[in-house]
Amino acid sequence: MLDIVILAAGKGTRMRSVKPKVMQTIAGKPMLHHVVDTARPLLGDNRSPIVVVGFGKKLVLGSFEAGDITSVEQIEQLGTGHAVAQAIPELNDDSTVLILYGDVPLIQAQTLQALMDQSAGDSLAVLTVNLPNPTGYGRIVRDANQKITAIVEQKDATAEQREINEINTGIMAVPARLLKKWLPELSSDNAQGEYYLTDIIARASAEGVAVNSAQPEYLWEVEGVNDRRQQAALERAYQSFNAQRLLAEGVMLADPMRFDCRAKLTLGRDIEIDINVVLEGEVELGDGVTIGPNCVVRNSTLAAGTRVEANSLIDGATVAEKCVIGPFARLRPGTQLQKEAKVGNFVEIKKSVIGAGSKVNHLTYIGDCTMGSGVNVGAGTITCNYDGVNKFRTEIGDNSFIGSNSALVAPVVLAEGTTVGAGSTITRATQTDDLAIARAKQRNIVGWQRPTKK
Amino acid sequence: MLDIVILAAGKGTRMRSVKPKVMQTIAGKPMLHHVVDTARPLLGDNRSPIVVVGFGKKLVLGSFEAGDITSVEQIEQLGTGHAVAQAIPELNDDSTVLILYGDVPLIQAQTLQALMDQSAGDSLAVLTVNLPNPTGYGRIVRDANQKITAIVEQKDATAEQREINEINTGIMAVPARLLKKWLPELSSDNAQGEYYLTDIIARASAEGVAVNSAQPEYLWEVEGVNDRRQQAALERAYQSFNAQRLLAEGVMLADPMRFDCRAKLTLGRDIEIDINVVLEGEVELGDGVTIGPNCVVRNSTLAAGTRVEANSLIDGATVAEKCVIGPFARLRPGTQLQKEAKVGNFVEIKKSVIGAGSKVNHLTYIGDCTMGSGVNVGAGTITCNYDGVNKFRTEIGDNSFIGSNSALVAPVVLAEGTTVGAGSTITRATQTDDLAIARAKQRNIVGWQRPTKK
Amino acid sequence: MLDIVILAAGKGTRMRSVKPKVMQTIAGKPMLHHVVDTARPLLGDNRSPIVVVGFGKKLVLGSFEAGDITSVEQIEQLGTGHAVAQAIPELNDDSTVLILYGDVPLIQAQTLQALMDQSAGDSLAVLTVNLPNPTGYGRIVRDANQKITAIVEQKDATAEQREINEINTGIMAVPARLLKKWLPELSSDNAQGEYYLTDIIARASAEGVAVNSAQPEYLWEVEGVNDRRQQAALERAYQSFNAQRLLAEGVMLADPMRFDCRAKLTLGRDIEIDINVVLEGEVELGDGVTIGPNCVVRNSTLAAGTRVEANSLIDGATVAEKCVIGPFARLRPGTQLQKEAKVGNFVEIKKSVIGAGSKVNHLTYIGDCTMGSGVNVGAGTITCNYDGVNKFRTEIGDNSFIGSNSALVAPVVLAEGTTVGAGSTITRATQTDDLAIARAKQRNIVGWQRPTKK
Repeated sequence: MLDIVILAAGKGTRMRSVKPKVMQTIAGKPMLHHVVDTARPLLGDNRSPIVVVGFGKKLVLGSFEAGDITSVEQIEQLGTGHAVAQAIPELNDDSTVLILYGDVPLIQAQTLQALMDQSAGDSLAVLTVNLPNPTGYGRIVRDANQKITAIVEQKDATAEQREINEINTGIMAVPARLLKKWLPELSSDNAQGEYYLTDIIARASAEGVAVNSAQPEYLWEVEGVNDRRQQAALERAYQSFNAQRLLAEGVMLADPMRFDCRAKLTLGRDIEIDINVVLEGEVELGDGVTIGPNCVVRNSTLAAGTRVEANSLIDGATVAEKCVIGPFARLRPGTQLQKEAKVGNFVEIKKSVIGAGSKVNHLTYIGDCTMGSGVNVGAGTITCNYDGVNKFRTEIGDNSFIGSNSALVAPVVLAEGTTVGAGSTITRATQTDDLAIARAKQRNIVGWQRPTKK
Repeated sequence: MLDIVILAAGKGTRMRSVKPKVMQTIAGKPMLHHVVDTARPLLGDNRSPIVVVGFGKKLVLGSFEAGDITSVEQIEQLGTGHAVAQAIPELNDDSTVLILYGDVPLIQAQTLQALMDQSAGDSLAVLTVNLPNPTGYGRIVRDANQKITAIVEQKDATAEQREINEINTGIMAVPARLLKKWLPELSSDNAQGEYYLTDIIARASAEGVAVNSAQPEYLWEVEGVNDRRQQAALERAYQSFNAQRLLAEGVMLADPMRFDCRAKLTLGRDIEIDINVVLEGEVELGDGVTIGPNCVVRNSTLAAGTRVEANSLIDGATVAEKCVIGPFARLRPGTQLQKEAKVGNFVEIKKSVIGAGSKVNHLTYIGDCTMGSGVNVGAGTITCNYDGVNKFRTEIGDNSFIGSNSALVAPVVLAEGTTVGAGSTITRATQTDDLAIARAKQRNIVGWQRPTKK
Repeated sequence: MLDIVILAAGKGTRMRSVKPKVMQTIAGKPMLHHVVDTARPLLGDNRSPIVVVGFGKKLVLGSFEAGDITSVEQIEQLGTGHAVAQAIPELNDDSTVLILYGDVPLIQAQTLQALMDQSAGDSLAVLTVNLPNPTGYGRIVRDANQKITAIVEQKDATAEQREINEINTGIMAVPARLLKKWLPELSSDNAQGEYYLTDIIARASAEGVAVNSAQPEYLWEVEGVNDRRQQAALERAYQSFNAQRLLAEGVMLADPMRFDCRAKLTLGRDIEIDINVVLEGEVELGDGVTIGPNCVVRNSTLAAGTRVEANSLIDGATVAEKCVIGPFARLRPGTQLQKEAKVGNFVEIKKSVIGAGSKVNHLTYIGDCTMGSGVNVGAGTITCNYDGVNKFRTEIGDNSFIGSNSALVAPVVLAEGTTVGAGSTITRATQTDDLAIARAKQRNIVGWQRPTKK
């Protein structure tokens, strides 16, 4: 049986933030959530990791749904050993306990699996890495048979031990039985007056408990974040890794160093993404989708063959095949484009359906509208969907033609084939094939005297 | 005499694309077109390189104009030797044959010239490079006099040969006479059952034909693309090289790593380009032109002293001296700005002339319009150029003043000095110095009851 | 006493610019101004550095305010020694003279202080750095006691001297008394026929004057700019250093390599800046301010909790707490947003006050307007503030509701609680709670025949 304890009680003073450190983000998601999302599938149905909270407890707990985690509180921050000890009441007697850190966000499931495999039976397993420059970290001391005999901290290490490149990441798997025995016996009789989890390794050694090890595939899996520099560096390591992974899957990225994926992706083939694109939330891109430079796509589905041109923002939209969006378009939540629809520059659309082949090409606001197919919306058209307190819908029938610079005052229904004259403010419904027009008569006044400079 | 054969028949499975590999792009141009564009000038008037096509033949051939290339088909992909053999019927008996690759896109003309110089008379010439890590490549074996005696593949190399850093790029120059003799005699009796072009080196050696060599100036000239990672890496190598070249020519780039040139450029002095700019097609920038961040300029000419502000897109425009464009401006094909014209934010212009000193500063769509000089177009002006099936032109005379939020319904001609009252929809022509106004009378209704929440 | 001489007379041919080199920028500020801004505080009240001008003198001098600098002219460019000699009449007899370069822009004050400390009494002090590859630079030759005995130029160096990594940066501190004695005695009897400042080191050595040294903290402090490559490289070094400094202060930068600060900053806590943001001028950001991707903020103050969304441009604006700006918003100089105001997409605002909680969400131009609190401005609203020669103001009272696609023709005053009907052109003042409407009657014409293709 497996239990998972995630330490997430620290303040993270060096972040210089009012938020608890574990709520700082990597790839748009709080670091603690990365760890929880990786840990939960290892536990199986209806079981949740035990999160040790402390600083900013309310904010941390409020970021989860009921059942996502089991929380225990560490009221005083007295060290990692003390933090894990708070979780003892929640641990099953016969479980193996995986100890993770809310500020080491990118640990991968397969690494944890490898670590757990090394803690079979009654042995401990520690996750280690080899660093070219191990200064400052606890060294893994092994005997002639490569058996781990101790973890020696920097300050306690002999000159010979300081040459060791293998260091302790802090991530470990320990039988609950041993944790329950050892943690209450830890001492805080050290320079910082803290209870160190690492001290249990010495206990294991002393009691003849085997200490095994595993190693992560990537160094960034075990990198922790203590300040903004480390946060930014880990963000870039993650983005770079992710970009290379997408390239391997066949996505064409114009510049892998200028691509930010903060999203869960579902991708087709032959997708081309130009420079400086940001993806957020849940994003699905069909075959042959192209995204131009400086676009943000969030929580949206773009079906096959759709083209997004430069400097467009798409949020919460469902876009069918072969649509053309942008440049300078903004699709807001609730936008649905049917196939081959076009949305052009300086156009905003929200909570609206744009029918197949319809075109909204220039300087237009479409809100709360159901638009049929084959509609042409002229430049400068505004749906007046708000009276100050209520929102109303506009319906535009198939094959309608909305003249430029028109205002459609909702609620209003334009029947199929309606033509609206340019510059009209439309407040009443039309019948099929009506021309609706509301226009003052043009007067030309001859010899007009222009204003003069005052 | 020179013949050029370009191998372009492969699928490129590792690209994970439905397109043939040689149609994938570097700097916005298909890789094969880079090679063809480099090769053609070497051949002289009215002669074209022989392209060996296969996978995706139709798409490949369809991307060229008549006369750009001579194509031969390799129906089965049986190796490089087999591919070149398909070109034999097109080769002149007395020519030297330069063998290039559609997926090695950035080979430079001067490198090819150097290679051809080495194949004078009856000798072969191979293009080689020295790699710090040559693992996997065919090693160039030389005797004590530095004469090439063999090319040994990785798997066949002795431990000593594996220490050789000089490797074969595959690009070579061979007398046609020898190719015609040797290619039909190649064997496919090897692990992959393919006919290898490289095997002719052994034949040359065996028959006492001299094998000379040349080297490219830059390593990226001989880098091939087999997957998206290599494509992205080569794109970046090219962009970086190009940016450094532009800096050397005196262009100020705010960040050479955030500049994408996919264009053929003609540049004046003292050009300043801010971060994240993309240039495409054919672009000409005059002295002192400045381009702000996040702009795309495509197929356009910007004359001296013109300033493009942030987040603007310019496509197919001709811009005279000292214009100011943007921010957030979009110029579409057929836009012509005369000197000192201004186009401001959220303005779209297409197929229109904007006269000298005229200003279109805010939230406006100008399409199919001929505008004189000294015109002021108010915010929110729309030219209504489309009736659903036809496009019509708008003419605006010199020194006209178009009041804000007006619609100009084309076809319409506004004479010189016309004033249009704000909020008017104009459908009829004006005479010189007319005021044209179409406006409903304002009524103020006292004690209006606002709608209430429904 | 301290005098500072800054050499700024050169043309900088390799920049390929019509501007004098010292006027080229780093982080948006001319290089010479960086040096002057660093130097002035060292001199104390009412004293200014002596700038040796020459090429482009008028442009250089015109870039300063009266009193910023004292200028002397070097009419012919005859070398660094000759340049400093032009400043002799301005030097105090008893001063120490700090010699700086207008094309070495990023020298830091603490480095200069350290150098001055080394020139106490009658000794010289030279600023040196150790370079892995010192080829081309003058080597610092020291005796067994580490005393500097000579500076040997590359071409004059022995094989042994060429192994020295410590090189001369050219920046030095020299007693004025010695400068006045030595400079007139310099010889131009060398390959380039120039008077070299460096030659005074040999004089010092010959006359038994001690030559001390100091070193800068960062290598980029002493890097000079001779061409665009060096300019771009130094720009990036500076931006990278600055980004790391901001991270250390707690600012969250999504990508430190895609952040350009050309501004003087005042920053609160928990500021988050997404990719590709540019800051210019003087920028103040309060606690918790977030700035989305591809934004430019110039000469503006954004108070705590304000959020700027993607692709927005803010220039010369004062923004109160918890405002939301963008995406695609443009605030121009003179914009003042009161707390919790919202400015949305494709909206331009200039010289206007937007009252607390007021919303200008879509496709609107607000210019020269004083807007109260709680106002809702509908999409497509235009303030018509310009009659072609004069600008007029619009006043909108608290809690007004401006219907979409309206034009407000200034000067006009809308009283508190005014409602404007959609599509109206408003020219006359309203009273409290009036509905103002100007709208032509809608006609629906049945069976309208659409235009046919011509």
